[in-house]
Amino acid sequence: MTLQFQISAQSTETPARCGSFETAHGGVKTPVFMPVGTLGTVKALTPEDLLQAGAQIILGNTYHLYLRPGCDVIAPFGGLHRFMHWPGPILTDSGGFQIFSLAKLLKMSEDGATFQSHIDGSRHLLTPEKSIEIQITLDSDIIMCLDQCIAYPAVREDALAALELTTRWAQRCHATWKTKARPEAALFGIIQGGMFPDLRQQSAEALVDMDFPGYALGGLSVGEPTELMLEIADTALPRLPSDRPRYIMGVGTPENLVELVARGADMFDCVLPTRNARNGQFFTSRGTFNISNARFRQDQDPVDPDCACYTCHNYSRAYLRHLYTARELLAYRLNSIHNIHYYTQLMAQMRQAIAEDRFNAFRRTFYAMRASDAG
Amino acid sequence: MTLQFQISAQSTETPARCGSFETAHGGVKTPVFMPVGTLGTVKALTPEDLLQAGAQIILGNTYHLYLRPGCDVIAPFGGLHRFMHWPGPILTDSGGFQIFSLAKLLKMSEDGATFQSHIDGSRHLLTPEKSIEIQITLDSDIIMCLDQCIAYPAVREDALAALELTTRWAQRCHATWKTKARPEAALFGIIQGGMFPDLRQQSAEALVDMDFPGYALGGLSVGEPTELMLEIADTALPRLPSDRPRYIMGVGTPENLVELVARGADMFDCVLPTRNARNGQFFTSRGTFNISNARFRQDQDPVDPDCACYTCHNYSRAYLRHLYTARELLAYRLNSIHNIHYYTQLMAQMRQAIAEDRFNAFRRTFYAMRASDAG
Repeated sequence: MTLQFQISAQSTETPARCGSFETAHGGVKTPVFMPVGTLGTVKALTPEDLLQAGAQIILGNTYHLYLRPGCDVIAPFGGLHRFMHWPGPILTDSGGFQIFSLAKLLKMSEDGATFQSHIDGSRHLLTPEKSIEIQITLDSDIIMCLDQCIAYPAVREDALAALELTTRWAQRCHATWKTKARPEAALFGIIQGGMFPDLRQQSAEALVDMDFPGYALGGLSVGEPTELMLEIADTALPRLPSDRPRYIMGVGTPENLVELVARGADMFDCVLPTRNARNGQFFTSRGTFNISNARFRQDQDPVDPDCACYTCHNYSRAYLRHLYTARELLAYRLNSIHNIHYYTQLMAQMRQAIAEDRFNAFRRTFYAMRASDAG
Repeated sequence: MTLQFQISAQSTETPARCGSFETAHGGVKTPVFMPVGTLGTVKALTPEDLLQAGAQIILGNTYHLYLRPGCDVIAPFGGLHRFMHWPGPILTDSGGFQIFSLAKLLKMSEDGATFQSHIDGSRHLLTPEKSIEIQITLDSDIIMCLDQCIAYPAVREDALAALELTTRWAQRCHATWKTKARPEAALFGIIQGGMFPDLRQQSAEALVDMDFPGYALGGLSVGEPTELMLEIADTALPRLPSDRPRYIMGVGTPENLVELVARGADMFDCVLPTRNARNGQFFTSRGTFNISNARFRQDQDPVDPDCACYTCHNYSRAYLRHLYTARELLAYRLNSIHNIHYYTQLMAQMRQAIAEDRFNAFRRTFYAMRASDAG
């Protein structure tokens, strides 16, 4: 039986809500942030690091894993979990976004997307059926429909065509999932429609008619102003059934997460905490700073005095600055641990605030803290 | 009171022996291998990783730490231990070898070595007194005398001049250590003399007269044939008092360690396990192999089926090959954990074999295993 979403608390001040769902690899409490494990590893971290940093569920990239190491390598392990030694739930994307952003897209047709690998230039055809089958081979707990992503900005005609193709592909994905996936694996539909609120509404309604276990907003955080992203969320999220999880793909900053949870979103993924960690940027309750700054040279304080992560518990800013400026490998790991922990704790704080029905008070404190000095 | 070396077992077949010593940061059982933590980090590993991999004591590089992050950064932490969050003993080298191999050596004088930093070209003078003072600032548990290293091959005249300078510097180091170091910090003298057995004998005798808590052989593993290295060890080690630890600097391969333990050596350091790990090479009881080899693409076995390390316990060769070929950061860490564990377990096996007075049987098995297939 596929994913059942249980809502445990509903904010009376905002559409924000707390919930949970079970998978074959354990439960997930929402709102949740999912660290991105592109190539079968959340960069620089072990599964134990991730669990200690509070990760409940991670994301795998179908496009990347299909190209490297390839399904024939992962399949004998029974899926991605055992291959990478991650015991918890995994959500896989469909590959659509990476074909759009990384590969050379050769041809988009009714059948699927023909593209050239960004690794070796080899040609591949990804159809909706094939995307689902790859995700089934990865033993994904939450499978995503193949969608067509468009650039920002886009004209209405292109946004409409992409959403209509995405809708037809969603039907094919749904049929493949129904017949081939293990019963506990869920399939989420992806709402497209660019930055046109009425198209987002049209996309949401078409997908809701197909009855997915969960719904996602795709094509956000692609360069649009935050106000526009929030306007799209304001339009689309209320069209989705309240008893299904709502996932905003590829978003975002701590402020984005707070604003989208406030609008009733439940799930997020983003490379921001890990990628920025590798560039020396720390997220803290008081805002962000870059550890390479010379003012940290002799700073014996932890990154965030209020943080309980492994990095803040054991290392000073002076040491982390030294590692980072010397380009030591340990820097990437310690920085990533902190940033993932910051994101998971931000979500935990939101869950608690919703459960205690004080989300607006939480939100005010969140912004007030960030106005203070981070480092 | 400085380091007291207790011999707990003496092989009756060979000069190999087992012992232990205490430091202000814990005890060490010998023979011991010390992973190299060049810049205040054993590359890619946390102190917890090192402890789990069996490390008892690590090495810090005075030259590197003096240049980056600098003593003024480390001093306020009370030393290197707290700065890098390593709770165990630390041995620091003197900086001599790095000035010889990394820096641009500008002038070697009676006073000390004038060199240009390999980082920013800045000029520095390292005297014997300054080397000891830096190591005291690092709160090193075992301090090394500043020595003059020479290239291989070298003419006798140069080898003699370097050993005589090293001997005079050793007296100055000894005086600085006696007056400035905390009482538990030990100072080791370094025997030089190039590949000339009689010069090694002369160097050993001069240093033994000064009564150091421990003695090292420097200037080995600099390109000479293994037979020559072992000949030097055969000459020098018997000249050293049996109640003091004997440290062979910068050595070496697993075979080197076995042969030098057989000759009565107690301590070793080398970048080989960690550097080679970062180049994809694994050490195992059956020999070495490189994980990038295509034959491991779908190999579900661990690196070494007989190994109990974190990496072998949780990951397959197929996964490690995938990480390594994709240049994922996690590869460097998982590979390093295995190789350090291999080295520490090799030493543990030797300690046990000596304690049970079956070192020659151990040595035969060691070579027989390596003749079998590693991968």
